[in-house]
Amino acid sequence: MIIYTNDFSVKMEKGIDIVDITPIVRDAVSKSDVKDGVVHLTSIGSTGSITTIEYEPGAIADLKRAINELAPPDRYYEHEKAWHDGNGHSHVQSALLGPSFSVSIRNGRLVLGTWQQIVLINHDIHPRERRVTMTIIGTE
Amino acid sequence: MIIYTNDFSVKMEKGIDIVDITPIVRDAVSKSDVKDGVVHLTSIGSTGSITTIEYEPGAIADLKRAINELAPPDRYYEHEKAWHDGNGHSHVQSALLGPSFSVSIRNGRLVLGTWQQIVLINHDIHPRERRVTMTIIGTE
Amino acid sequence: MIIYTNDFSVKMEKGIDIVDITPIVRDAVSKSDVKDGVVHLTSIGSTGSITTIEYEPGAIADLKRAINELAPPDRYYEHEKAWHDGNGHSHVQSALLGPSFSVSIRNGRLVLGTWQQIVLINHDIHPRERRVTMTIIGTE
Repeated sequence: MIIYTNDFSVKMEKGIDIVDITPIVRDAVSKSDVKDGVVHLTSIGSTGSITTIEYEPGAIADLKRAINELAPPDRYYEHEKAWHDGNGHSHVQSALLGPSFSVSIRNGRLVLGTWQQIVLINHDIHPRERRVTMTIIGTE
Repeated sequence: MIIYTNDFSVKMEKGIDIVDITPIVRDAVSKSDVKDGVVHLTSIGSTGSITTIEYEPGAIADLKRAINELAPPDRYYEHEKAWHDGNGHSHVQSALLGPSFSVSIRNGRLVLGTWQQIVLINHDIHPRERRVTMTIIGTE
Repeated sequence: MIIYTNDFSVKMEKGIDIVDITPIVRDAVSKSDVKDGVVHLTSIGSTGSITTIEYEPGAIADLKRAINELAPPDRYYEHEKAWHDGNGHSHVQSALLGPSFSVSIRNGRLVLGTWQQIVLINHDIHPRERRVTMTIIGTE
């Protein structure tokens, strides 16, 4: 059993921005020399999240709409009382979607569906350099 | 520390279909000989998800209603422009619920609540043979 | 590679109650002597969940409102037919948010954002002593 860590950052536009991070994960899996195991990803910060979706413009637009309906930006949030920074919806969206995700490695390759990509989401109202921790655990 | 992999497939009805996969996971835990560790499950494909719920008909019906309110099937989705296959809501539902889940093993047994079952969800509009990767890591 | 388990319970008010469990996790990471690795947390029972948020009263109030909009308490649930215990919404909320979460350890420290706390949520309509399994895996 070995462990391989490869944390990274992604420059993101103001939210909702959704970026395909599959190439970064695939590259790390290749470098890790892990044959069978798991990749753990966690988005750092309280206004990001990670999930999977088919990364094509239509589905991405549909996901943005759904996320903005879960916690609409144009609404009053109690979080305003603390910081007056207008991103109460960003925090709620991030908490509902969740910041962690795990995916398997088999025979040295990431196991995803043909149309399934791993995406990092910035819910914040400002551009952000979002950090992600990646930990790969498995057999050589 | 050992690792034990046991990927599997489940025949599912068109969505929303929710199937209790706890027996499959319990069986693998038993075969793995892991005493203390973790089971990682990931649903392969962009129209599935994994979570836990009390697996009884009422709660399952309630969950289906809530999921269909997050991303209603009878609505226009931009995803239509790419494929014209009518499953835009399936992709959004899957991304919001999330495809990965982890649960612990203690003393060789899966640790879940008495009324808590692990469920695989098919959000797609067609019957699917859904694949799940299962990786068990822990001490013998 | 070592594994360290440290399951714990938290006394919680009737739902929605949201408790910051970061100090418990940080303490376990310190005791585990793991330098680089992952912490896996799973909420036991079908009416709890785990996620992260900035733990300040405003954001917590905003999250409670959003969760109660996902599955409103004052609505009819089919789950009533099974148990007549009035917590159909609790089960649905828990399934949508999800009971498991993973976070990284680097240089012996938990990696979270400055304003990001790990929270355990009780969705049930009764006070609960909620159990959480914690498994830490990594290098010494």
